[in-house]
Amino acid sequence: MPELAYVNGKIMPIEEAYVPIEDRGYQFGDAVYEFLASYGGRIFAMEEHLDRLERSLKALAFDRLPRNVIRDAIAGTFHQAGYERAGIYLQVSRGVAPRNHAFPRHAQPQVIITVREAPILAPGLYANGASAITLKDIRWQRCDIKTVQLLPNTWAKQQAMDAGADDAIFVANDGAVREATSANVFIATQGALITHPLTDNILPGITRAHIIDLCNEQGILVHQKYFDQWEMIAADEVFLTGTVTEVLPVVNINGQSIGDGIPGTIAPILLEGLRELAGA
Amino acid sequence: MPELAYVNGKIMPIEEAYVPIEDRGYQFGDAVYEFLASYGGRIFAMEEHLDRLERSLKALAFDRLPRNVIRDAIAGTFHQAGYERAGIYLQVSRGVAPRNHAFPRHAQPQVIITVREAPILAPGLYANGASAITLKDIRWQRCDIKTVQLLPNTWAKQQAMDAGADDAIFVANDGAVREATSANVFIATQGALITHPLTDNILPGITRAHIIDLCNEQGILVHQKYFDQWEMIAADEVFLTGTVTEVLPVVNINGQSIGDGIPGTIAPILLEGLRELAGA
Repeated sequence: MPELAYVNGKIMPIEEAYVPIEDRGYQFGDAVYEFLASYGGRIFAMEEHLDRLERSLKALAFDRLPRNVIRDAIAGTFHQAGYERAGIYLQVSRGVAPRNHAFPRHAQPQVIITVREAPILAPGLYANGASAITLKDIRWQRCDIKTVQLLPNTWAKQQAMDAGADDAIFVANDGAVREATSANVFIATQGALITHPLTDNILPGITRAHIIDLCNEQGILVHQKYFDQWEMIAADEVFLTGTVTEVLPVVNINGQSIGDGIPGTIAPILLEGLRELAGA
Repeated sequence: MPELAYVNGKIMPIEEAYVPIEDRGYQFGDAVYEFLASYGGRIFAMEEHLDRLERSLKALAFDRLPRNVIRDAIAGTFHQAGYERAGIYLQVSRGVAPRNHAFPRHAQPQVIITVREAPILAPGLYANGASAITLKDIRWQRCDIKTVQLLPNTWAKQQAMDAGADDAIFVANDGAVREATSANVFIATQGALITHPLTDNILPGITRAHIIDLCNEQGILVHQKYFDQWEMIAADEVFLTGTVTEVLPVVNINGQSIGDGIPGTIAPILLEGLRELAGA
């Protein structure tokens, strides 16, 4: 099946998709994005992703972009590519203009989409659990807006790989555990979950929200409050949530085992619940 | 004269210059840049810009890119465009690869350059002085590396314009005045200058360094130390330095006059010295 790209209304193979060098996404990171996944040929949580996208566009005062144009672009490219289990990347930049920091007047937002097979995590990772390192959170202070200001995330991910770990978890200067490089973090202690509250410093994850809903349905208590890395390492379970990550147990952080060093009981239940919800 | 672009060895009109959508500069802001200016048909401070570029590339572990390739690309595009007073933008991204946070192995850095007439600040700004607002510094914590993680800078610049001011000056949570959206900040009190020391939180400005050298030659004392916004507003003079900015007096901050509300005596001397050095 072809890996396809959509660029402002046209669909083509990804390697033929180009943008002008003065696209503000390229020179300023002045762009927002979403990553969606399909299960069994159906896109999961489309409206939630469109909601968040609209929130990002509004926060940064992008020119208006009708929701149905975006929805149709995503659905059209996805259907043409034809994957059952697709990873769909959508990026909207403010527009193309001669380089100047101030926002251009009436810029036309640029929309690109790529559709390919969903990225699959290493085999055994869900069964055996992942490892992570902690790193100081040096990102900008509006990580609630899903922008392409992602260099610190990519750098942290690379530092994790270099350290032989699967991911990095950002810790604020004040000690609060924030999130991983592309996933939210939950910890479980005595059967109850804790996750960072929604602030300017973490992404309001769509999977995070689904997990909280699932917990409410299943009678698992979730506290949205701060926790530090010592509470995290002492927890019974730690897991990450995200569109690609789904629900991934973390069994080792900075070389220290979490719980018994094997996945706990809550994460697998939530992973199953999430996949059921997504129609897997 | 034509506005030209260089893309990986080829020179073309800017509007014909494109990059692949999976250039990491576009999807992650995984790219660094320099902005150079020419005076009288001669590029100013080329080697200092190449030094800083190499420092940026090394800090982020980009694959190697020979200095002479970059120098020749800049000089060749500049000469072909033929401007006496050019603004030269150079951007190097890590490379093109299917989207994945971790650094791709052996990515080929992508080099783009644009050359056009140097941006000229509004007439009268040097003579009458500029106005600024202060904003909380929400940028990432490695602003010493000259990357395209610039969305907060563009947003701050726009907020300044919306407030009827010319620029915004970032202030840290601890009160330290850091820098403007694309320039360093100096204040003058009783004939001596103060500017933020070189840390991870400000750009090591090339104009900043030239200004310090000029001050040393002319017997003007420069302290590289922290100062807060109250010291700044109470100063005799405030000015910004940068490749585009040159030496720009700021006479009003947050609606409060600096000194007598007109440019002081030190900034014009340094502006003249800088332009002389640049061969203007």
